[in-house]
Amino acid sequence: MAILVTNDDGIYAEGLSALNRELRKIAETIVFAPSTEKSGVAHGVTLSSPIALEKVVLDGSIAYAVEGTPVDCVKIAVKGMGIPKPELVVSGINAGANVGIDVIYSGTVSAAVEAAIMGIPAVAISLNTRESPDFSFAARFAAELASSLLKDRFLPEHVLLNVNVPSVPEAQIKGVAITKQSRSCYGEKFEREDVSPDKIVFRLSGKLSDLTEPLDYDVAALSHDYISITPIHFDLTHHPSIDSLLRRKFGR
Amino acid sequence: MAILVTNDDGIYAEGLSALNRELRKIAETIVFAPSTEKSGVAHGVTLSSPIALEKVVLDGSIAYAVEGTPVDCVKIAVKGMGIPKPELVVSGINAGANVGIDVIYSGTVSAAVEAAIMGIPAVAISLNTRESPDFSFAARFAAELASSLLKDRFLPEHVLLNVNVPSVPEAQIKGVAITKQSRSCYGEKFEREDVSPDKIVFRLSGKLSDLTEPLDYDVAALSHDYISITPIHFDLTHHPSIDSLLRRKFGR
Repeated sequence: MAILVTNDDGIYAEGLSALNRELRKIAETIVFAPSTEKSGVAHGVTLSSPIALEKVVLDGSIAYAVEGTPVDCVKIAVKGMGIPKPELVVSGINAGANVGIDVIYSGTVSAAVEAAIMGIPAVAISLNTRESPDFSFAARFAAELASSLLKDRFLPEHVLLNVNVPSVPEAQIKGVAITKQSRSCYGEKFEREDVSPDKIVFRLSGKLSDLTEPLDYDVAALSHDYISITPIHFDLTHHPSIDSLLRRKFGR
Repeated sequence: MAILVTNDDGIYAEGLSALNRELRKIAETIVFAPSTEKSGVAHGVTLSSPIALEKVVLDGSIAYAVEGTPVDCVKIAVKGMGIPKPELVVSGINAGANVGIDVIYSGTVSAAVEAAIMGIPAVAISLNTRESPDFSFAARFAAELASSLLKDRFLPEHVLLNVNVPSVPEAQIKGVAITKQSRSCYGEKFEREDVSPDKIVFRLSGKLSDLTEPLDYDVAALSHDYISITPIHFDLTHHPSIDSLLRRKFGR
């Protein structure tokens, strides 16, 4: 029984190592992760160029550093290598939350989405800080969750869990909240430099806005020190609009 | 009244030019599109490096070639430039369909999703061929749809339209189908080359599988020569799972 471990912070990220060490206590793990940081690549896939993989040693697991995106990692591990299909995919631990609108930019979540597309149960896990993160509690929580998913298989097919852990001492964590994806967007910052009349250079950065939403939304739950667990799928159809569109004439 | 035009095939793609020429008949257009092809980048955003823009001339429109992703283009055009917010964003015309699972990999669709996040009505439009595409009918259809969206504003906030046009002579097009996103996945092909015992190189390619689904799914509608229009949103929450997850114990 093997768990595929991946992330978007790169194969040498501390969050991946912490996660892998805990998961190895409950199952065999194989690691396929980007060779360099790939944050913000979303569901990107490498079609235009070849993807190189290098075998590395990582805490005693079979591990490959992949010169590609998190989605590439899952595709290659599951379908390209000719190894048995993993029973579970766990992506993370990301340094920084993946909540609200971040969910659709996130390489961490997209790796788990790719697993769900293939019908493999999957978890994306992120810790709500980028500064000197302590992954130990989040890693243990991920292993508990993975263990219960392997035992009970309680997720419907093609649904994954997006887990976000507050970055506070364990005793201050208030519990688990089952949440929905918040509408919170980025308050973006654009640094602009006009290089010439015809050339401009921008640098993007941003901070999630703090919508006032109830605790059953991911952003709010996390900011109130709950572990947020959101069930995620990849059907982007806005079903409530179908009927009104069916009543419109579209010229033909 | 201005329409922002973008794509993922790059600013010099024929599909963008055909689209822009038709849209200019109904409104002012501004073009912000990637300087090179960015297919398959999904909702990727450039955070780690600066993004350069070069002003270019394109069929008489103000146009910028952006060294970034389609999502970068929309972010910069709407929030970075200090120009009036566009009334509508149209992304395309993509050479190749964006249906089924492709919807989540597609830079074309993601640009329109980014607009919807910002509350701007948006359309992604794709033509179902990559070989000597004739964009003229799809461009006229896009302009009709854009015109009716500008007039009637019939889309709920944060919902966009994903439009796919069959690549057959206009007289063979059977009509418009309002559709849902199909579950069709890629039958992936992995070309593998073992360079050394520790190094492997993969090349990915693939073809959408042909699920047997009714005509109210995008893949089926398009393959039966209907124009497929799918309403899309970006809430990935799998709402039907919330209740059963609420009944589970998660250790704390």
